[in-house]
Amino acid sequence: MSGATWVSLTEQTAKIAALRATAALLEWDQQVMMPTGGGDARSGQIALLAGLVHEHMVAPALSATLAELATQPLPADQAAAVRNLQRDVARAIRVPAALVSELARAQADGFQAWLDAKQSNDFASFAPKLSHLFALKRQEASAIDPTRHPYDVLLEAFDPGTTLATLRPLFARLEEGLRPLIDAVRGLPAPAEVSGTFDLTAQKALHEQVMVALGFDTHRGRLDFSEHPFSTAIANGDTRITTHLYADDLLAGLSGTMHEAGHGMYEQGLPKALAGTTLDDAASYGLHESQSRFWENFIGRSLPFFRWLAPRIKAHIGADVAPEAMFAAANPVEPTLIRIFADEATYNLHILVRFRLEVALLEGSLAVEDLPAAWNEAYATTLGIRPATDREGCLQDVHWGSGAIGYFPSYTLGNLYAASLAAALQSELPDLWGQVERGEFAPILAWLRDRVHRHGHSAEAPDIVRAAVGDRDGVTDLLDHLWSRHGKLYGVSRS
Amino acid sequence: MSGATWVSLTEQTAKIAALRATAALLEWDQQVMMPTGGGDARSGQIALLAGLVHEHMVAPALSATLAELATQPLPADQAAAVRNLQRDVARAIRVPAALVSELARAQADGFQAWLDAKQSNDFASFAPKLSHLFALKRQEASAIDPTRHPYDVLLEAFDPGTTLATLRPLFARLEEGLRPLIDAVRGLPAPAEVSGTFDLTAQKALHEQVMVALGFDTHRGRLDFSEHPFSTAIANGDTRITTHLYADDLLAGLSGTMHEAGHGMYEQGLPKALAGTTLDDAASYGLHESQSRFWENFIGRSLPFFRWLAPRIKAHIGADVAPEAMFAAANPVEPTLIRIFADEATYNLHILVRFRLEVALLEGSLAVEDLPAAWNEAYATTLGIRPATDREGCLQDVHWGSGAIGYFPSYTLGNLYAASLAAALQSELPDLWGQVERGEFAPILAWLRDRVHRHGHSAEAPDIVRAAVGDRDGVTDLLDHLWSRHGKLYGVSRS
Repeated sequence: MSGATWVSLTEQTAKIAALRATAALLEWDQQVMMPTGGGDARSGQIALLAGLVHEHMVAPALSATLAELATQPLPADQAAAVRNLQRDVARAIRVPAALVSELARAQADGFQAWLDAKQSNDFASFAPKLSHLFALKRQEASAIDPTRHPYDVLLEAFDPGTTLATLRPLFARLEEGLRPLIDAVRGLPAPAEVSGTFDLTAQKALHEQVMVALGFDTHRGRLDFSEHPFSTAIANGDTRITTHLYADDLLAGLSGTMHEAGHGMYEQGLPKALAGTTLDDAASYGLHESQSRFWENFIGRSLPFFRWLAPRIKAHIGADVAPEAMFAAANPVEPTLIRIFADEATYNLHILVRFRLEVALLEGSLAVEDLPAAWNEAYATTLGIRPATDREGCLQDVHWGSGAIGYFPSYTLGNLYAASLAAALQSELPDLWGQVERGEFAPILAWLRDRVHRHGHSAEAPDIVRAAVGDRDGVTDLLDHLWSRHGKLYGVSRS
Repeated sequence: MSGATWVSLTEQTAKIAALRATAALLEWDQQVMMPTGGGDARSGQIALLAGLVHEHMVAPALSATLAELATQPLPADQAAAVRNLQRDVARAIRVPAALVSELARAQADGFQAWLDAKQSNDFASFAPKLSHLFALKRQEASAIDPTRHPYDVLLEAFDPGTTLATLRPLFARLEEGLRPLIDAVRGLPAPAEVSGTFDLTAQKALHEQVMVALGFDTHRGRLDFSEHPFSTAIANGDTRITTHLYADDLLAGLSGTMHEAGHGMYEQGLPKALAGTTLDDAASYGLHESQSRFWENFIGRSLPFFRWLAPRIKAHIGADVAPEAMFAAANPVEPTLIRIFADEATYNLHILVRFRLEVALLEGSLAVEDLPAAWNEAYATTLGIRPATDREGCLQDVHWGSGAIGYFPSYTLGNLYAASLAAALQSELPDLWGQVERGEFAPILAWLRDRVHRHGHSAEAPDIVRAAVGDRDGVTDLLDHLWSRHGKLYGVSRS
């Protein structure tokens, strides 16, 4: 009986997976390949596919199959799949169709209004759209579960298993722990940048060599270029990443490629379960981000990595760049205004500001029209600098205007998970840095495959990380790592 | 009333158009971008989208809307759309679902069996699959309309408005008219090939310049590379073409690019009507092919074109190639065994052989096991040469094994339409060849836009061509063109 029902479930989820894959391809193509003339029609195609996914998610037959399976004794992974799917289906069913389409419209409008407002540094023109979006997201959260804090409900879409109750103390401890490092470095001379002009074709060849050396499988994925780097999984054997090359910045582009390759290798390491059962899904946005940050920051900004990289830069680009110079240039500690250019240490304070503000906006304790002032005040208090314009302030990110409320914490969760994974890995692979310097990345990837990737979404992210590293504390691990790397570089030590 | 119903129709057809566009993107991506690892999942995605298109085509609501519109007085273009759609819907409804899926499976099996059989030159292993396919296509034709000849029913899917009664005398006249030219040239020395090694990156830049010069709009389309060149329209503003570059053959690749650019420019010139109403569709495969052949052969193999091209080859590739040498190399007349490498004159005899054989196979007057002998005999009689193996004989083409029966005549229809369009154009643009030599292609494209493209599928292809060129005869126009170009080149004249 259970066997037959499981088969019926996988038939239904395979369809949903194929529709999602198709939608993902439409979006990848839009950003990477599509000629501009295809834009009008593309929006309609994407909306149609999203509607079809929704239809299949709310289909009574799927709910019935899940309800029947939920009463049966199942193998642990199948039980996890049923739990995940029941949660996703419940979320899809509880939001009324009218609200779904109003949200879709408000998100499209919000994105456009944000683009225009950022361009013209005009928050006032964006404020009504943003208010409307927060109101709709409050309605959405309440429709899904009126008994929980709306922020917890929204957060669940990105990082199930994490709540406000986890995040608040975590950000408080981070703030407290980061301040001494930032204070210790304040006023010290910033490291020199690696300057020059670097041929783009040669850079591309270098990126491809690095990506393949890390373990990204080009038979099951590909690298392209887009305005903003991103990664997407079209299917189990088809993971696509993009990067952006800068003629005058060798490290910025490479950092992006390593970040996206980290996402891509996670996707390539997910179990090849039956499509759409959620067992072959990533466990959370935060865990996804841990994989990109691990490679981008922990490996990619380390001195041994730059020692391995230097002769490869020489071979591809012809430039002599000293590993120590790259290591210094890649690891400043300096409060700045723009999140996406922030260094490894101050980055999480940018997230902290956004987290606290979006909670307040959702609760209604902060009015949207007061956001610019609150933002600037928070930057002054937290990072010690104050934006001169909203363009460098609360208009800098795309997220809220596109309706992605509750998304920001995933970035910091990723950094914390990555720190604990890195600490555990370091204690288990004693020659880790020797291996990195020799370009032997395979044991590292194998460890991540074993501890993280192969588990898919068979448990929630915090549990997967706990099983992987034991009883470690992410905040402690991150602060230890930052003091060790940046403290040493700046010649300051923990008091 | 009619207004409301027309709006309701366009809402339904817009959905179908979006699904078709998505399916087209899945297929384009599979051939151009997809990593091999995506293959398994991709078949399922394409099959799912094909199923959704079918579901929407056979939906009772669509039939009801069409039936209501058919009784109303409508503007001529709307009436044409209703007629086209009723025909397509009727074809979709009349074929039982079981036969649809059996055909899909047989076509997939047939394609694979053909690949293997061609590889190993083993017709016997392919024969049962091919018999099965012909049997199913007979059933399909009979399900759609048991009162018409099955070949006419199948042909209608590619070239509505053309029938066996049109094709038979047309091929007979072509055969009769081509023989004296081929006989006259037989034994004369073949022109020298343009040999050398040509950098691929430089070739690509040359192709892009040529394609844009002809009028292909790269804001509404793009050029990529694939094993076999093809073109596809994802949406009105998104037409994609591919080509294949050969390091040792400058003209073969360029010929492919011009052919596909011709298809692409037709798509780009179709009316921007409401999506999916068929008014913005190509009128037929034959008319589509006329646009590719016009640019590939009539323009692209002309001496004035090579005069324009020569300095551009010099600029991109650094090679000095005399226009006269290219003109001679591009225009042999020489019976050969392989259709896709055939010259402009003998090409249609390859189609004639296939046309007669597929009619006989469908009627059952030729048994599949007797195909190799019949094929070889037909080549001996028609082209004067006999294949030594089935690989160079009846196994060379992908069409029948994939279920595309009734497709071949579109190639010759395209050549005939192109010949009449070219003859009419020449009489209306007296300085045509001067313009070509100066690279002034815009008036030519404007003429094609006006006479062919903008009409979409508001009439059947033969009627569109008749309205475009008046009472011309395609066979006469093609023979005149071939005698004029090839006769002159070989120094022979019509007796």
